Amino acid sequence: MILSHGTLTAPEAHADATRQMLRQIAQATRQETGCQLYLVSENLETPGHFVITEQWASMEDMQTHLALPAVGEAIAAVHGMGITDLTITAWEAGTQTQIM
Amino acid sequence: MILSHGTLTAPEAHADATRQMLRQIAQATRQETGCQLYLVSENLETPGHFVITEQWASMEDMQTHLALPAVGEAIAAVHGMGITDLTITAWEAGTQTQIM
Repeated sequence: MILSHGTLTAPEAHADATRQMLRQIAQATRQETGCQLYLVSENLETPGHFVITEQWASMEDMQTHLALPAVGEAIAAVHGMGITDLTITAWEAGTQTQIM
Repeated sequence: MILSHGTLTAPEAHADATRQMLRQIAQATRQETGCQLYLVSENLETPGHFVITEQWASMEDMQTHLALPAVGEAIAAVHGMGITDLTITAWEAGTQTQIM
């Protein structure tokens, strides 16, 4: 299983557009093969700073997602809104511990 | 390295108190040994649903955090606000891929 953590910061003028875009991406991505979790959220300490939390069945599924035209368009839209710090990091999940 | 994903849902009457509590927990926890990331955020699709994203240097560091009296008090406060779905799952991080 793949765990992925992404963040981005929207300029204030584009914060609402970014919220709406992230909601749409989440709804679409959750329909894709291998997508086990796709949550979009906003940092409680820093409005306009967003978190994307993903879980995928495999890296192949995540790469298939990333290669979709809609994903390229979304990344272009992100850049078009002046967002320059989009970062996404993925890890293979190792031993799991249920904390609570 | 440990990756942790937590979620909880606050009743509407306690949503603001939960936001404030999560901010305080984040600020305090980031000072702890081995805490590499502690982000608290709110689901853009479901207000009142919160996400806790943690990274720890080791499971020992995370367990030391979880054993702190302040953490026990925070969990008691969560339950006191009628939050019944607090879940936290941690994984050992495997191979890392920088997606973007």
